[in-house]
Amino acid sequence: MSRLEVRLSGEGGQGIILGGIILAEAAAVYGGLNAVQTQSYGPESRGGASRCEVVLSREEIDYPKVILPEVVLVMNREACVRYAHQVRPGGTVVVDSTFVDAVPETPGRVYRVPITRLAREHFGRDIVANIIALGVLAGLTGLVDRTSLEQAVANRVPPATREANLKALDVGYRAVAELLSAAASDS
Amino acid sequence: MSRLEVRLSGEGGQGIILGGIILAEAAAVYGGLNAVQTQSYGPESRGGASRCEVVLSREEIDYPKVILPEVVLVMNREACVRYAHQVRPGGTVVVDSTFVDAVPETPGRVYRVPITRLAREHFGRDIVANIIALGVLAGLTGLVDRTSLEQAVANRVPPATREANLKALDVGYRAVAELLSAAASDS
Repeated sequence: MSRLEVRLSGEGGQGIILGGIILAEAAAVYGGLNAVQTQSYGPESRGGASRCEVVLSREEIDYPKVILPEVVLVMNREACVRYAHQVRPGGTVVVDSTFVDAVPETPGRVYRVPITRLAREHFGRDIVANIIALGVLAGLTGLVDRTSLEQAVANRVPPATREANLKALDVGYRAVAELLSAAASDS
Repeated sequence: MSRLEVRLSGEGGQGIILGGIILAEAAAVYGGLNAVQTQSYGPESRGGASRCEVVLSREEIDYPKVILPEVVLVMNREACVRYAHQVRPGGTVVVDSTFVDAVPETPGRVYRVPITRLAREHFGRDIVANIIALGVLAGLTGLVDRTSLEQAVANRVPPATREANLKALDVGYRAVAELLSAAASDS
């Protein structure tokens, strides 16, 4: 892997930025890669949009911004319209189907997962949706290994919520397993 | 202000990254500027070093990395050795004198504030040192206005800690007032 670009998008309150920090720390601090994690705030952020970019590489990272990502997470409709099509051909687009029905045409492979609904069902609240999303992204793409991701989650979330967040990560990985097994029996 | 660069540095656990997020959100979401906030993770991050960069501008920000910052915060000795001299001539270098005795030669103006000691004295714990530091930086430089900073702090910290963090911000501003009044009576 010379360079792998990830974009996480949604709105304020969905934990997009914490998701990016955890992903970058999993890859870098625990996984031995270089990582840069960036948030850009412009007029759209005053409307509540939230976007976070992570670049991973075995080499030094000269250019820290995402050019055309391999992996995209969209957590609401606006983010879907804006970012689902900005992905490398064959790249991975994960859509939170709790909030998004229609996905515009995209060169990526689209995976619909009811991320926030899973958070509500398993934990009775939306707040861990970002961690479920990380489990989904990592499970689908292998962009970081699970042990590193668990360590980064455990290190970054408040200690009192550590156990719930590690369970949320597991919910994400299991959602991927179900998705893939459903896809296999469809074919 | 066409472009203003800020570097926050220290070690894991000092809340450097959250400090950068709050600063960027204060400037952008509440202050109407554009902001980009970046963390880079390399081999030094596996040794525990933490660094966060914020670029503010009225214009769009094409290049998101810090080139030579106007404002630098160093929260431990290693960060001081590495970053205190990387500052524009006449720029502001804030040093947490709790951990740093000697400051290497630098083209910036150095302000020594016992940030972590203030956190311990006022709150009995280190954890709000990052918010005190933001109050110091903003009080010294005016790089964001106080109301915006208070809103960003209130929005980003856990609700149960909101009051303590707003007090911590005030401790930072008051430390600046004392520093400036001491400087005035020295001269």
